[in-house]
Amino acid sequence: VSAHSLLILSRHAPQYERLFAAATLPELSTFTATDNKNLPPSASACDIVFGEPSLIAPVLPALTNVRWIQSTWAGVEPLLNPALRRDYDLTNARGVFGPLMSEYVFGYMLAHERLIFARREAQREKRWDTTAPGTLRGKQIGLLGVGTIGAALARTAKHFGMRVKGYTRSSESSADVDAYYHGEKSAFACDLDYLVCIMPNTGETRHLVDRELLGALPARAVFINPGRGSSVDEEALADALANGRIAAAVLDVFQTEPLPADHVFWRLPNVLITSHTAALSAPTDIAPLFIENYRRLIAEQPLLHRVDFERGY
Amino acid sequence: VSAHSLLILSRHAPQYERLFAAATLPELSTFTATDNKNLPPSASACDIVFGEPSLIAPVLPALTNVRWIQSTWAGVEPLLNPALRRDYDLTNARGVFGPLMSEYVFGYMLAHERLIFARREAQREKRWDTTAPGTLRGKQIGLLGVGTIGAALARTAKHFGMRVKGYTRSSESSADVDAYYHGEKSAFACDLDYLVCIMPNTGETRHLVDRELLGALPARAVFINPGRGSSVDEEALADALANGRIAAAVLDVFQTEPLPADHVFWRLPNVLITSHTAALSAPTDIAPLFIENYRRLIAEQPLLHRVDFERGY
Repeated sequence: VSAHSLLILSRHAPQYERLFAAATLPELSTFTATDNKNLPPSASACDIVFGEPSLIAPVLPALTNVRWIQSTWAGVEPLLNPALRRDYDLTNARGVFGPLMSEYVFGYMLAHERLIFARREAQREKRWDTTAPGTLRGKQIGLLGVGTIGAALARTAKHFGMRVKGYTRSSESSADVDAYYHGEKSAFACDLDYLVCIMPNTGETRHLVDRELLGALPARAVFINPGRGSSVDEEALADALANGRIAAAVLDVFQTEPLPADHVFWRLPNVLITSHTAALSAPTDIAPLFIENYRRLIAEQPLLHRVDFERGY
Repeated sequence: VSAHSLLILSRHAPQYERLFAAATLPELSTFTATDNKNLPPSASACDIVFGEPSLIAPVLPALTNVRWIQSTWAGVEPLLNPALRRDYDLTNARGVFGPLMSEYVFGYMLAHERLIFARREAQREKRWDTTAPGTLRGKQIGLLGVGTIGAALARTAKHFGMRVKGYTRSSESSADVDAYYHGEKSAFACDLDYLVCIMPNTGETRHLVDRELLGALPARAVFINPGRGSSVDEEALADALANGRIAAAVLDVFQTEPLPADHVFWRLPNVLITSHTAALSAPTDIAPLFIENYRRLIAEQPLLHRVDFERGY
């Protein structure tokens, strides 16, 4: 007898099904779909849904029996649409993206310091290019947001000998941050070599990266955004990049995705675009979050990583 | 009254002169030259010489009074020429290259995992490229040589969640190495994702990276050489790269430098060439080594980082 029935609605549904089966979760019937066009007939009876918010949101009205949705993503924007029901527990993926974000951010910061693209151009010309590279050591990184991802970035920054400034609403949770700022945009930005935005998408973070913040950065600064496109005033950023107000940007997320083909970001020579791949949810990372939460559900313990619909994360 | 006189013979002589002056070293007269064509008249009277081995070696016979040479480089090959005098103390730069080497090696490994070049090609075509990147986490790195540089690389590898294999003559000095190998080339190489060569140039390390070692690597492996060109059988490496026997190589050092314009490495699409810039000696890193050693000299304490002419490092 199964007390619970689960709909896995994910591009990676077969892989998740295998990972959950290997965990031999008790009292659970499982149904799967890799897209929301062909849901199994039992979908509407499932009390648990696991998957990508973008796939779940359009069919949420038909999932009449759902009591708990576990998102495979950190961001759950599609499910925050005020027109949708909120009469269920929503949990997101948290705590697993720090190492991937670290690889992304430090990969691109090192590419910048080590002149990786210029060196390859020299190679095309068979030119022995001994231009001295830079180093991360002694440089300053500013983190817009210091949650679990920011804390992971701060730890890697300290490993490479950087100074770390953190900008948060109020919390000062990471010991790897050398100085915290709460609202003093100029004091936070004035001496940064790198500005990294890892804010969630909420009303408060909208256009946090604006003309004021960009104007306070030194001309050498590189802006990296693997967070959310909504945090950035894209017109102000495009101006700052086109005018050399800042040195460069590495952008993973945008106001509109995929980035429209006529967007100026595609053409600016000091912009690198990574098409929302900074920290893709890997089934082997995400599956354990569901397994832990399912065990909590049947043990009648509180679920981990619950999303506050009002706060947005 | 100056008890000692110092010749700074370095491309960065003015900067070193300022750094040493700031340390107010007692009983020291200083002379400088940025090349060895125009040595100051007092050069032959100097008992201490500081600088690049490549500049010092050709004029060593004229430096008749020298008792101690401090190299700004880790490698001192030009001074190991058997035709040259060895009746002085030779000290090299050590312990300062680990962090720079880490930035080089991990910069290029992350560029490989994160598809940094492919992503930029996609951008040229305004293509929203969501190809999933790889991750360093769980991958295996093999270190040929585990001295202070190898230990620094091992520590960074553990930070990124990698497994570390170390190949050494006998020492097992770093706790960040998960498994040590002493001569079992196939067992060492068979499951590596990355092979990094950081051996000094000695008779024993000549062509350590040969057909046998390259043949034992998996096809996915990337070879990175910021060590010495003499460690590599370049013909065997070129064959392995041309035949897809291994995936790619990142090469900083070569048998002949600058790399000749007709060398096959310039043309292989899976080779990246960095023109001996992996860990350039920065005056702010190297000056403290001389200052410490000079203080030891006048205190009649043993100098640090003495080179054994026979061993070669």
